[in-house]
Amino acid sequence: MVQIIALIKPFQAANVLRALESIDVVGGTVREAMGFGRQKERLHRYLGSEYNSSFLPKIELVVFVRDEDVAATTKAIISHARTGRMGDGKIIVLPCLDQYVEW
Amino acid sequence: MVQIIALIKPFQAANVLRALESIDVVGGTVREAMGFGRQKERLHRYLGSEYNSSFLPKIELVVFVRDEDVAATTKAIISHARTGRMGDGKIIVLPCLDQYVEW
Amino acid sequence: MVQIIALIKPFQAANVLRALESIDVVGGTVREAMGFGRQKERLHRYLGSEYNSSFLPKIELVVFVRDEDVAATTKAIISHARTGRMGDGKIIVLPCLDQYVEW
Repeated sequence: MVQIIALIKPFQAANVLRALESIDVVGGTVREAMGFGRQKERLHRYLGSEYNSSFLPKIELVVFVRDEDVAATTKAIISHARTGRMGDGKIIVLPCLDQYVEW
Repeated sequence: MVQIIALIKPFQAANVLRALESIDVVGGTVREAMGFGRQKERLHRYLGSEYNSSFLPKIELVVFVRDEDVAATTKAIISHARTGRMGDGKIIVLPCLDQYVEW
Repeated sequence: MVQIIALIKPFQAANVLRALESIDVVGGTVREAMGFGRQKERLHRYLGSEYNSSFLPKIELVVFVRDEDVAATTKAIISHARTGRMGDGKIIVLPCLDQYVEW
């Protein structure tokens, strides 16, 4: 089992989630998040402070899939969250231990 | 050290959190999240879009515990979040590296 | 690549984020979270229930950096989130698999 974390643009979330319905996602969450990183063009008020920084609203998708579904899942997310411009998204994959339980 | 992520039903959160007080949880967070997965019976408005999908409000519990406390912690979470119906919850365990610091 | 999760006090978030701008953070998110752990002095209403528990508002910083940047990143976070009192923060580092993609 792995945990896939994807940070995508909000307007692409519906596309990506629809694409994930055809994949055997064991479970996951979808959430708004303020992303930051190497894009430093925005001034944002957030968390009560003013940052001369790079905050951009993102949807954070956290998905748990079996090892054999990682390639199909990341491909589905990337292909449905792509606009052709830079900064569309990021995907990171983390290993899980064997104690996965669903009840 | 491991990271335990549990997705549970909101009305069970109080029970589970009380149970965790008797365990040596190094730290953790509790948060509302929209869960999705293999339950596909709900139509929900969320994030400005309408999904014919499987979003269900969940409480996401993220807990950091020492290796020797994993079994007791997952057992406490599962036993206090169980109603006997399907879809009560999920638990995933991820390994952490040794650089844990508390200050 | 690793995932660094830091739970810090909200009023220290601006300092820490400014410090991170000088480090090559591949990506990350910043978010409010209710933290709990070994500080058990607070009574809080949250999530519709009353917990005689240890919830404290925290900022959760999730940062993805390359292996060679872990030490500098954790040092920047800790040194800028330190007030000298107990309970200032926690940092946990999780390993990522090689499938990191940015597009």
